[in-house]
Amino acid sequence: MTDEQYMQLALAEAQKAFDKEEVPVGAIIVMNNRIIARAHNQVELLNDSTAHAEILALTSAFDFLSSKYLPEATLYVTVEPCLMCSGALYWSKIGKIVFGADDEKNSYRKCCNGNNPFHPKTELVGGILKDECANLMKDFFKARR
Amino acid sequence: MTDEQYMQLALAEAQKAFDKEEVPVGAIIVMNNRIIARAHNQVELLNDSTAHAEILALTSAFDFLSSKYLPEATLYVTVEPCLMCSGALYWSKIGKIVFGADDEKNSYRKCCNGNNPFHPKTELVGGILKDECANLMKDFFKARR
Repeated sequence: MTDEQYMQLALAEAQKAFDKEEVPVGAIIVMNNRIIARAHNQVELLNDSTAHAEILALTSAFDFLSSKYLPEATLYVTVEPCLMCSGALYWSKIGKIVFGADDEKNSYRKCCNGNNPFHPKTELVGGILKDECANLMKDFFKARR
Repeated sequence: MTDEQYMQLALAEAQKAFDKEEVPVGAIIVMNNRIIARAHNQVELLNDSTAHAEILALTSAFDFLSSKYLPEATLYVTVEPCLMCSGALYWSKIGKIVFGADDEKNSYRKCCNGNNPFHPKTELVGGILKDECANLMKDFFKARR
């Protein structure tokens, strides 16, 4: 499957969040062409401001593999990670991160001033299905204004 | 109770981690002079590289209060937070963070270049029982060399 096809699956997760009135971010983790974790943002449901899609997907993947490192895995996430999620991805040593839309407000870039917060071996790719991922966020916040 | 007395309780949590061969970091969360969460690092036990003391304490406090924000609470943690934990503390809007030892290797400061990753209303205090907190870390890593 292509990056775009995997991102469609992350978008389907984000749509689940949207339907539950959660900020619509979705993530999947893939290893050897197999999906090993799926998650969407559950901050409201869990009353936990750290329950971002990436964190829930990581925890699920660690559990599935019984491993605290994911060097062979790729995370697909619909929106650029925040500082917390970037730090979590650093600790996971994940092989590759593919994101959709930029996040000017909460991106790790805001605090990191050009420093790379990820593990030196982690590959980073952005902009996959950028418009679809961004439009879901825009629709969500528009409905709440 | 004083900051030093609360930090002693965080150190007791760190000692529990030490005894289980986990990197010895402990945390407690206090609100209105009441301890609402205690946790120690459980990365090895849970096979989860994100299971830092601060994250486990935050999740426990959110659950206890059924609230995703902690503006009235104070976190005591034996070692300066990493980037992931700093991001999690940002989202929690915690009122105050008190840490013990500096962490030259993993501190959020390494990536943030002088930027403050915490919520603008969060107060930050460092150096409480600094030597005791640092010595527990040194003893742990010395035993593993």
